[in-house]
Amino acid sequence: MIAVARGVEVTLELRARLADLYCDYDNALNDGEFERWPELFIDACVYKVLPRQNYERGLPVAVIYCESRDMLIDRVVAIRETALYAPRTLRRFTTGICLHAISDDGLRLTANFAALQTMQDQPSKPFLCGRYQDRVVDNAGVLRFAERLCIYDSTIVPTSLVYPL
Amino acid sequence: MIAVARGVEVTLELRARLADLYCDYDNALNDGEFERWPELFIDACVYKVLPRQNYERGLPVAVIYCESRDMLIDRVVAIRETALYAPRTLRRFTTGICLHAISDDGLRLTANFAALQTMQDQPSKPFLCGRYQDRVVDNAGVLRFAERLCIYDSTIVPTSLVYPL
Amino acid sequence: MIAVARGVEVTLELRARLADLYCDYDNALNDGEFERWPELFIDACVYKVLPRQNYERGLPVAVIYCESRDMLIDRVVAIRETALYAPRTLRRFTTGICLHAISDDGLRLTANFAALQTMQDQPSKPFLCGRYQDRVVDNAGVLRFAERLCIYDSTIVPTSLVYPL
Repeated sequence: MIAVARGVEVTLELRARLADLYCDYDNALNDGEFERWPELFIDACVYKVLPRQNYERGLPVAVIYCESRDMLIDRVVAIRETALYAPRTLRRFTTGICLHAISDDGLRLTANFAALQTMQDQPSKPFLCGRYQDRVVDNAGVLRFAERLCIYDSTIVPTSLVYPL
Repeated sequence: MIAVARGVEVTLELRARLADLYCDYDNALNDGEFERWPELFIDACVYKVLPRQNYERGLPVAVIYCESRDMLIDRVVAIRETALYAPRTLRRFTTGICLHAISDDGLRLTANFAALQTMQDQPSKPFLCGRYQDRVVDNAGVLRFAERLCIYDSTIVPTSLVYPL
Repeated sequence: MIAVARGVEVTLELRARLADLYCDYDNALNDGEFERWPELFIDACVYKVLPRQNYERGLPVAVIYCESRDMLIDRVVAIRETALYAPRTLRRFTTGICLHAISDDGLRLTANFAALQTMQDQPSKPFLCGRYQDRVVDNAGVLRFAERLCIYDSTIVPTSLVYPL
């Protein structure tokens, strides 16, 4: 279940439904079920991975920049069939999921993420951490991401961002 | 409180009870109250720590392999009285607890774990991360683990797995 | 939402309110809204950051030792105006929030924290991890910290503890 910011009123049921969405997201990616990942977004979604520095200065460059679910599907195909990379596991830990506002265009949430990467014959290491900044909408009875910004803290470009965050 | 997978219906109360079990587990181990650890399992329990590689290929070898609560108790005695190891703290962070199915033999859950180890005069470091794969049963009104697999991501054998995960 | 220890009875609503407080705390610090931090404590609060070694032996020395909200405000002013330090991000991950007891002087809780620090042009690294030990009170309808001990696992003194935990 998730937290809500002061002044926001929600039912325990909505808190639980949002917790389920966030957990489903991490499970799909952590378990390598990448095909399930685009299903958690609406068609006209925005998904970006970008450094905090760029985000705070309003600079548009992002390491990953997708403007529709189709672009997410494209990315999954790339991971499965065309991209070349050393085998690895990327495990995401999401904490502090917080609902900040409910407006006509959806629910505004933030959360912290830490991703630990494990390469073959190496110990697990912190890969990236930062803040999710999300807009979630009710899509015919199912909660889905309309927008997810993965704003990472580091100022260095992650050289091998193979899997989504 | 925990999340549930799509299609699974549970009360908020059961979510809360499961959250309490998972938290109790981490607290017992994180605070070094090892004697409380076996009490969180049923008598005929299974507890294993094994690499993801072995798990996925169906290979039986595990780093820790216990097939009853008595074997867990035995392990605690070893930690307290016979094992020799450098002093350390192992702190477990569990996120993404998710109830996937409810069947006759219990509740099926998964969760992510990250364990940070702190040796004397050294900074805290990631030790192991991976996925818990659990079966939980209602044992005379108390939720307990019937099975807990600690499937870690790394392909290298942890040389000093002193404390349970 | 948070967990409760065996034998403690609370409503789901109180669990949710406590989750909100804990999340608000992490958000204020993770987002650099330091001015919001003292507001989460009562006037006559205690806030300490100390090593587990000292805590367990009852030794009083702490790396940060504040005995009132005013001292917290003072610290924020220092961070903003007088302290000199290299730019960094400190992101806190709190898991396993557990309510252990409800007594006349407030609610007793513990939680695990891991703080990942990101320096400029460097990857994110574990900075400190440990256990929060808290007393929370209802302050005219708002939950606030009366006492927060940040007991870190490491035995080495963190040389650059710029931001609070």
